[in-house]
Amino acid sequence: MRFFTFCAVLLLSTLPYAAQTAKPSAPMQERTIIDVMNQSASDWNNGNLDAFASSYKNSPDILFIGRTISHGYAQMLAAYKAGYPTREKMGTLTFTQLEVQPLDANFATTTGHFHLERTKAGGGNADGYFLLVFEHTPEGWKIVRDDSTAILPAK
Amino acid sequence: MRFFTFCAVLLLSTLPYAAQTAKPSAPMQERTIIDVMNQSASDWNNGNLDAFASSYKNSPDILFIGRTISHGYAQMLAAYKAGYPTREKMGTLTFTQLEVQPLDANFATTTGHFHLERTKAGGGNADGYFLLVFEHTPEGWKIVRDDSTAILPAK
Repeated sequence: MRFFTFCAVLLLSTLPYAAQTAKPSAPMQERTIIDVMNQSASDWNNGNLDAFASSYKNSPDILFIGRTISHGYAQMLAAYKAGYPTREKMGTLTFTQLEVQPLDANFATTTGHFHLERTKAGGGNADGYFLLVFEHTPEGWKIVRDDSTAILPAK
Repeated sequence: MRFFTFCAVLLLSTLPYAAQTAKPSAPMQERTIIDVMNQSASDWNNGNLDAFASSYKNSPDILFIGRTISHGYAQMLAAYKAGYPTREKMGTLTFTQLEVQPLDANFATTTGHFHLERTKAGGGNADGYFLLVFEHTPEGWKIVRDDSTAILPAK
């Protein structure tokens, strides 16, 4: 009896590891990540940059590519606040063509198109495609890499 | 004795799983991926698009973002061959600021800047930052996501 008990403990001790690395269903990943994207657009359009930034992982290792490469959550939030100080500069953000591509249990990429509708005084419209990498963190799915290059309109 | 043998087998049976998910050293990932990048630039500059494309995973699931989003290895290779039919159109490709950011044992991102030096007849120069996702496949580290948007020069 002790034999089976001991072996059962051994077997059970492997379960938490298996559970951690088990792959969640891709549709569940996809729904959750699409929800994060829609919430972040909603937060932007409510003028709440702190809430918008919470779709990113709060880490110095995250990175963004726009017209240059920058690193870190704190730097990102400071740059957003410097670049979009008013509702007019923020404009109205819309994501379309959202698509989630799972990599494994803990990472997925997301692609889509962004459109920023702004007055000329606010900076004018901006458009582009983006590639994001999401990580499954203890706080939920968070963006850890963001390449959102605006495509300048053809002249 | 049989008790210990059986439990040893149980324990050993968990080892291959742990080995599969063990994280290879980040410096090793980094060196290997930088080598892939340098080789791909070299293949481009030798006018060999088939060799250049081999830095990507041969899968319909890979995707690229430039001025639009497209999917699949075969489509990518066809688009490269259509867009860069001559050495003059291919120009000379240089990667700088290469940086590898490991995600886990099987995935890593890579960022950098590309410069395409071309004659005016070849299409002129092009520049931009890129974000790539690499996957550790049985054939080595291969690109599975590529966002390489060219930044148009300010006018």
